[in-house]
Amino acid sequence: MSGTTGKEIKNMKIVLESGREITSSPRTTILETLKGDGVYLTTSCAGNGTCGKCKVLVKSGSVNSESSGKLSETETRSGYVLACTTSPEGDIHIEIPKESIMTVEGKIAVETSKNLLSIFKSKGVSIDPLTRRTPLQLPPPTLDDNISDMERFKRELAVKELGCMRIPFRLLRGLAATVREDNWNIILSTIKSDDCDEITNIFPGGRQTDRFGVAVDIGTTTLALYLIDLEDGNVIDVASTYNSQMRFGDDVITRIVQATENNELDLINMAVINDINNMLTLILNNRGIDPDKVDQVVVAGNPTMTQLFLSLDPSAIREEPYVPTANTFPLAYAGELKLKTRPSAPVYIFPSVASYVGGDIVSGVLASGIHKKEELSLFMDIGTNGEIVLGNSEFMVTAACSAGPCFEGSGIKHGMRATEGAIENIKINRETRELTLKVVGDTKPIGICGSGMIDAISEMFLTGILDQKGKLHKDESRSVRFGPDGLEYLIYAGEEKDIVLAEPDIENILRAKAAIHAGIAILLSEVGFTFDDIQKVYIAGGFGKFLDIEKAIILGMLPDMPREKFEFLGNTSIVGAYLCSLSRDLRDEAEDIASKMTYLELSTSSTFMDEYVSGLFIPHTNIDAFPTVKALIEK
Amino acid sequence: MSGTTGKEIKNMKIVLESGREITSSPRTTILETLKGDGVYLTTSCAGNGTCGKCKVLVKSGSVNSESSGKLSETETRSGYVLACTTSPEGDIHIEIPKESIMTVEGKIAVETSKNLLSIFKSKGVSIDPLTRRTPLQLPPPTLDDNISDMERFKRELAVKELGCMRIPFRLLRGLAATVREDNWNIILSTIKSDDCDEITNIFPGGRQTDRFGVAVDIGTTTLALYLIDLEDGNVIDVASTYNSQMRFGDDVITRIVQATENNELDLINMAVINDINNMLTLILNNRGIDPDKVDQVVVAGNPTMTQLFLSLDPSAIREEPYVPTANTFPLAYAGELKLKTRPSAPVYIFPSVASYVGGDIVSGVLASGIHKKEELSLFMDIGTNGEIVLGNSEFMVTAACSAGPCFEGSGIKHGMRATEGAIENIKINRETRELTLKVVGDTKPIGICGSGMIDAISEMFLTGILDQKGKLHKDESRSVRFGPDGLEYLIYAGEEKDIVLAEPDIENILRAKAAIHAGIAILLSEVGFTFDDIQKVYIAGGFGKFLDIEKAIILGMLPDMPREKFEFLGNTSIVGAYLCSLSRDLRDEAEDIASKMTYLELSTSSTFMDEYVSGLFIPHTNIDAFPTVKALIEK
Repeated sequence: MSGTTGKEIKNMKIVLESGREITSSPRTTILETLKGDGVYLTTSCAGNGTCGKCKVLVKSGSVNSESSGKLSETETRSGYVLACTTSPEGDIHIEIPKESIMTVEGKIAVETSKNLLSIFKSKGVSIDPLTRRTPLQLPPPTLDDNISDMERFKRELAVKELGCMRIPFRLLRGLAATVREDNWNIILSTIKSDDCDEITNIFPGGRQTDRFGVAVDIGTTTLALYLIDLEDGNVIDVASTYNSQMRFGDDVITRIVQATENNELDLINMAVINDINNMLTLILNNRGIDPDKVDQVVVAGNPTMTQLFLSLDPSAIREEPYVPTANTFPLAYAGELKLKTRPSAPVYIFPSVASYVGGDIVSGVLASGIHKKEELSLFMDIGTNGEIVLGNSEFMVTAACSAGPCFEGSGIKHGMRATEGAIENIKINRETRELTLKVVGDTKPIGICGSGMIDAISEMFLTGILDQKGKLHKDESRSVRFGPDGLEYLIYAGEEKDIVLAEPDIENILRAKAAIHAGIAILLSEVGFTFDDIQKVYIAGGFGKFLDIEKAIILGMLPDMPREKFEFLGNTSIVGAYLCSLSRDLRDEAEDIASKMTYLELSTSSTFMDEYVSGLFIPHTNIDAFPTVKALIEK
Repeated sequence: MSGTTGKEIKNMKIVLESGREITSSPRTTILETLKGDGVYLTTSCAGNGTCGKCKVLVKSGSVNSESSGKLSETETRSGYVLACTTSPEGDIHIEIPKESIMTVEGKIAVETSKNLLSIFKSKGVSIDPLTRRTPLQLPPPTLDDNISDMERFKRELAVKELGCMRIPFRLLRGLAATVREDNWNIILSTIKSDDCDEITNIFPGGRQTDRFGVAVDIGTTTLALYLIDLEDGNVIDVASTYNSQMRFGDDVITRIVQATENNELDLINMAVINDINNMLTLILNNRGIDPDKVDQVVVAGNPTMTQLFLSLDPSAIREEPYVPTANTFPLAYAGELKLKTRPSAPVYIFPSVASYVGGDIVSGVLASGIHKKEELSLFMDIGTNGEIVLGNSEFMVTAACSAGPCFEGSGIKHGMRATEGAIENIKINRETRELTLKVVGDTKPIGICGSGMIDAISEMFLTGILDQKGKLHKDESRSVRFGPDGLEYLIYAGEEKDIVLAEPDIENILRAKAAIHAGIAILLSEVGFTFDDIQKVYIAGGFGKFLDIEKAIILGMLPDMPREKFEFLGNTSIVGAYLCSLSRDLRDEAEDIASKMTYLELSTSSTFMDEYVSGLFIPHTNIDAFPTVKALIEK
């Protein structure tokens, strides 16, 4: 970690823990060198040395480090450096912490893939992506028939009676070469439209048989991306990552302020575009797929995420009367959004309902199918916000709960998403107060995810370590101790770091669950129903599949209802985006859902504040609404 | 002209001949400094020191010159430098030769303007540019009516029954700010279309009342540009310049070869784009008009010029069966062509007829009106190529003559366009052999333009200085002398340089006139007419207005017909572009002309070569076809 030496410059080796050796050029950062060899590290600052996410441990060898960003003094002292601002000065041995490696959930992908295709098949529609392909054989020109390439093409469209077709100017460039490449055999790519289909591409006949689609869920905290084979509907790979916009603020309001008052719309927009491009490039590289074969993109996100993705000024969303630029969107092209697919690939953006209920919810409802069922269903998407939909095939009402991003790990000291190393399940022995942990991937724990937090709090509550108001009691367990943020509960004592839940963490979690529960209560009362009328509760959101219903009810997040009424759906936003990637009928259905849903503004409800404050208790001030919890406490 | 001195750096002055002083910063080229002060020099290499067009004479003071490009040794010795690669090293006095100053034909512009508006008015159509403007008042959003900006906008379109309107994605960006700028008053800009109108822009209501159009004629040798007030149809200013593509070759074939075999399509494309941008920026700066107010562009050019302007691969144009990419063009946007207007300004490109008869001829025919007359007319556009059209309201046939660019000054040692300083008229005294010259602008001559060349050759022929075969006779005049290219005829003895016509120049001119005359002869015979059937001859092309018909007949370029049958129209391509800038009806008429015209390929005519070779004589081998010339010779 000294300054540059005067030694002769030659190539060096970076040796990983596994023994793998990667050659590094002089003055090239570790980040770049690893990337060149297919090892991708997480960065949310695009490698500017500020986010601190790409840290690696230098175990031996000399390096030149330009900044240590967000590294703690302890980390720096232990030999951690930021890969993005550090270059080797000779052969070095490094260790890459798990949290620095960009996640590609390969295993989950394969599994998910099968399920998804069966979900798609269950919808009873055929594969019909954004663009249709039509082969055409043009008669080659002769001296007697030497009309221009474009007129020849148009004549053939008329002969084949392909209907009104709009030809954008850009298609002229390259047309001469395209028609001649495969002896006047071409393939048309068109987008169906009510008035006149648009030609998006003209390919030489011999090429472009296989093609792929990308479905993206843009969450406020996390992003998910599916690469889909548009021929058979299979999901080829899945990637997910944190949304790098987090450095502009954890919630949508802060990001809107940053985008407008600080004039950072472009930066915030490019943060998420880069995230998507990074995930996509990683998958495409792994699979050896040419980005030019990516033929379409389908995107679902909440209204603010959608506007920031499209680089639309979001300021009016947060000012009365809360108006987004658009709730339905014309098709965009990947090129104008700077996505690294074929620039002419069309981008479908899910329609929104209102300023705080967006395309992710429309997508989720489509995936859940509640809009086609007779029974009264409650659909909950517990991500950064917590949007809820109540309804059936007759009506749908929706509201947004402002729950905050804590269940996705943000704002919680040792919070993380439910990926490898996350504590997803916690039990506290009633006698010994000893903990049993379950960790995603059965590895050494590196943090705690949403379901782990809910487990921890309800277990602490049941054992008396935590009281109804969310305060820790030091005398109830040796695991309660003073930490830098006040009282904290030690969940895992690690060699390098401990994993704890501190009182401010617990406060965040209680606020989130209170907002969700209050939202459901208000929505029900506004349309004249009660909790008992709900026949089914669908729980969507990243942490859904790990959630222990029992514990969530003890916490007071979910209503105290028969357990068989609950069903987990996982990330429904990405599932809906996948479905709409494959079918025009389902895209029409999504537009229909968006236009049918009625939005209720919770903040203008006279009873919201009362409901919210009552919900800050565990499980609730009205303990009678939680009979099974009451019974447990009494036991 | 020494190297950089060690003196302290401070600002310096460039003093022009007129006494005007311009402050120069250190290490800034003369070109840049002059430009900053509104003095534009001609450059066709974008200031790279290679074209030699921006030469200036340094009369006193020290400069640092990095390259002397195409300057001759004599010029360098006399103190000429290239303004683009030379910076002052202290105060300097310079003289700018006329040919280095970029031409803005201000005086002609005002005059032309009146004529043009009356031509437009004579067409009996109303002003209807590419885009229509429609004011709209949206109801501002309230808490009870808080649909998105886009839905609010669409709702108003429906309320006002404005019909099908396509909204491109790019309009979403900025929409939120636009609708709010003038309290929800907006102005729509739309393009009429058969299926569904396209919205090109949404402006705040209080802005964008005045708007302008640009009409461009892209000649192989010269470019002309009109800035038009789209409200009243007046031409505000006119600019013209050489086509910088000349450095890639004088004729279209050479440029096609350069574009394809040397892979220089992008460079050739940008050469003409830069020329147009330079002219436009100059005019807009002079008039203080914001480029964002330029609302549309209309372009006419021959097929190769059109393809190179659009950056379309032109290779198939020169290979059998001679096929261009397109003869009719979808609207492009200025931004995708890199034109420096508002990027969303639509660009209308005149339709072509065939690979060698293009939009400039369609535009010219439209301006001439021959397509609406009963009489049999011959339309000739004598530019770099020499295209001819024969027909009336019933039929039209057309051919291209490959005349070459000599009448526009190219390929002729002292050739130039008919701008200030060009010898446009020459008389040789039959007795004394003394010359009388007429110079455009009545200034000191700096070159000879097309009409001057025709005058010179026919006068030399009539006085016996030149024989029928185009050979000079030294003993017939003291003005005939040996020069570096063989025998030459001294037209003007200047202090700095003489102006001559050498035998290779004369040969070029004879080849051009032979091609034109042969073209007319073949076209007539192919459709079964003779010279006598022609009721009217319209002569278009830059040099038209200065041309002496009598002399052109003596030369054998024009048929020997009653003089009252001839009419000069000037640059009809730019006039047609002007007309179509203002009227949709006339644009429809242009499309109609293009589709009605039949193209004849001269090179496949069995008699073309005979006709051509006969035409290499003055006036022709068949002197009986030129009775008035025969009478003159006999006299």
